[in-house]
Amino acid sequence: MNNKNILVEQLDKVLVIEISRADKKNALTGLMYEDMTNALNLASNEAQISVVLIKGQNDLFTSGNDVKDFLNRDPNKEPAAIKFLKTISNFKKPVVAAVGGDAIGIGTTMLMHCDLVIAADNARFQLPFVKLGLCPEAASSYLLPQLAGSRIASELLMLGDFFGADKAITAGIINSTCPQELLIEKALSLAKKLANQPTDALITTKSLLKKNQASFVEDVMGEELKEFSRLLGTEASKEIFTAFLEKRPVDINKIHAS
Amino acid sequence: MNNKNILVEQLDKVLVIEISRADKKNALTGLMYEDMTNALNLASNEAQISVVLIKGQNDLFTSGNDVKDFLNRDPNKEPAAIKFLKTISNFKKPVVAAVGGDAIGIGTTMLMHCDLVIAADNARFQLPFVKLGLCPEAASSYLLPQLAGSRIASELLMLGDFFGADKAITAGIINSTCPQELLIEKALSLAKKLANQPTDALITTKSLLKKNQASFVEDVMGEELKEFSRLLGTEASKEIFTAFLEKRPVDINKIHAS
Amino acid sequence: MNNKNILVEQLDKVLVIEISRADKKNALTGLMYEDMTNALNLASNEAQISVVLIKGQNDLFTSGNDVKDFLNRDPNKEPAAIKFLKTISNFKKPVVAAVGGDAIGIGTTMLMHCDLVIAADNARFQLPFVKLGLCPEAASSYLLPQLAGSRIASELLMLGDFFGADKAITAGIINSTCPQELLIEKALSLAKKLANQPTDALITTKSLLKKNQASFVEDVMGEELKEFSRLLGTEASKEIFTAFLEKRPVDINKIHAS
Repeated sequence: MNNKNILVEQLDKVLVIEISRADKKNALTGLMYEDMTNALNLASNEAQISVVLIKGQNDLFTSGNDVKDFLNRDPNKEPAAIKFLKTISNFKKPVVAAVGGDAIGIGTTMLMHCDLVIAADNARFQLPFVKLGLCPEAASSYLLPQLAGSRIASELLMLGDFFGADKAITAGIINSTCPQELLIEKALSLAKKLANQPTDALITTKSLLKKNQASFVEDVMGEELKEFSRLLGTEASKEIFTAFLEKRPVDINKIHAS
Repeated sequence: MNNKNILVEQLDKVLVIEISRADKKNALTGLMYEDMTNALNLASNEAQISVVLIKGQNDLFTSGNDVKDFLNRDPNKEPAAIKFLKTISNFKKPVVAAVGGDAIGIGTTMLMHCDLVIAADNARFQLPFVKLGLCPEAASSYLLPQLAGSRIASELLMLGDFFGADKAITAGIINSTCPQELLIEKALSLAKKLANQPTDALITTKSLLKKNQASFVEDVMGEELKEFSRLLGTEASKEIFTAFLEKRPVDINKIHAS
Repeated sequence: MNNKNILVEQLDKVLVIEISRADKKNALTGLMYEDMTNALNLASNEAQISVVLIKGQNDLFTSGNDVKDFLNRDPNKEPAAIKFLKTISNFKKPVVAAVGGDAIGIGTTMLMHCDLVIAADNARFQLPFVKLGLCPEAASSYLLPQLAGSRIASELLMLGDFFGADKAITAGIINSTCPQELLIEKALSLAKKLANQPTDALITTKSLLKKNQASFVEDVMGEELKEFSRLLGTEASKEIFTAFLEKRPVDINKIHAS
């Protein structure tokens, strides 16, 4: 691993991937996606690893994609975030996620590719794509309606407001909650429990569960990426990101041209 | 607009469509569907409109399709209700609905084509098709199992009993509730909030959310319509509608021939 | 019927199928599946029957597939359980199920092919396939994610722990609960209510509700069966079943080869 913002550790048969960039609220850069992708590939190839646990800290998961990173995207290169999402969505072994504090943008959409998600009871989730002049990613335009129903999916994706752990449970994004101070401990214990199941049965079951959505997920990610890249180039999203970095209000007239 | 039972008004960037036929519990006639279809087409073509709000009054949405209208259907002509359903299911801009009081039949099924639905906490919903000797419409036989799961979809569609706003939330038909006296005000404020989002991002997001079900919805509407039209001609449904209009009990022997 | 462990009785227009093998916790044998399949076929062909009710007793549904029966499966013959599942998944008339006490394995998966399910409020459900070194069956790898969302489906199928009636409701496996002592009475009353609906409308509605998943269900059952049969032959599942019958702990090293 070439970057100390992603920490990787094996505990028994569990590979633990920790997002660790406290000074930037765990915002994810291209390098961090690459490290997470590499860690998943390592877990994939290592017979002694049965389960992956993705976590931040008890009080923070990730504030999402690094904003500067968005503006510096090379349009001719597959973004590292997309490579990470493809890798996690095709990953054969079970993935557990532990969400403490904020899970914003890809912090929420990556959960839709995990198998079990436990969150602190005061965790907050947000899908702010439309607010930023962008559109859903990570196949969330397909997966969230399946999980939450079309009404709730529209609400969370179109309004883009924060929502709490209770709503994340009814929306099917997470499995359960626990007190914040117990989060990492509980999640690790869950991952180890899963790793103790008969291996072949476990992997086969994940494969069957994913089989009927795998091709949709890949197609939808492609459709979303096309629109996402186009929207990144519009005056609306440029104005929103620039205003954010310049800490000034958005010029409302620039965001309503269609 | 050629009919005062559908009132249309633009408020900021929101086109408000009001069902207004108090003496007949807002029952929908062919003309009223045509007016709603025309209003949607107007909103579609008008760049200054970003969002549509469909509402009745604080204490009434609609008692559903006008019964006499059912009996007078010309079997060789596409019913105005179907044209309305096709239009709303393919509509590109977000649609908010406000449900106060009763939402019966198409009053409930049309909600499955809206993006955000807010209801009065004492609203009532009903899918009485089977009770009337008919079958689901508006692709509800496909959309309701997706929203509510097969068990609850079967319950609501096969038994056809009234259900309340709490059940409508867990069934994924509506987003949230509010006190009845605040309904229209809250719904308008929600529609305006949506209309303030970046336009391109909003429309693109709706398009992505609908993409993977659009072709199913159209096919299912066709299959349902074929059966619906056939069932309208059976002795069972004729007996049920006639008994309703003559205010006498149904002859039970006539409704069990299969 | 050639086996007193499946009792069949017609009450009005309802065919009642009772699982009755108290000394073995209603565990299902090949003969019992055959009797249930025959009863469904009888109900299918009999115009006087509109609805089927499947039940155990107020305090027991079924402990699942008989373990000895698993070990004696003839790999060259379609298992009777599969024939039963195919029959119930293609059954044209509504099926109500009443779940008291334990519903284990196929006791839970068969519910996903019923239309209405009522359970005692102290009922327990379990999908222990992975724990047994096996994988999902009855198209549950496709149907459960649709009902419960991917997170909860993974939880119930990968961990394989018991869950209660409340979780079964939120997972969309059952419709509602009632006090245990009223279960059979309530379920019969529900089945009769359904049987009083206009017959043609009822059957047509079930057909529309199933139409869009029918071909998936059959394909998935085939994919699952291939893996299930393979896993039955692995050292892991053989060790687990043998340990169960010999009432000794599982040798943990034998179940983690992949």
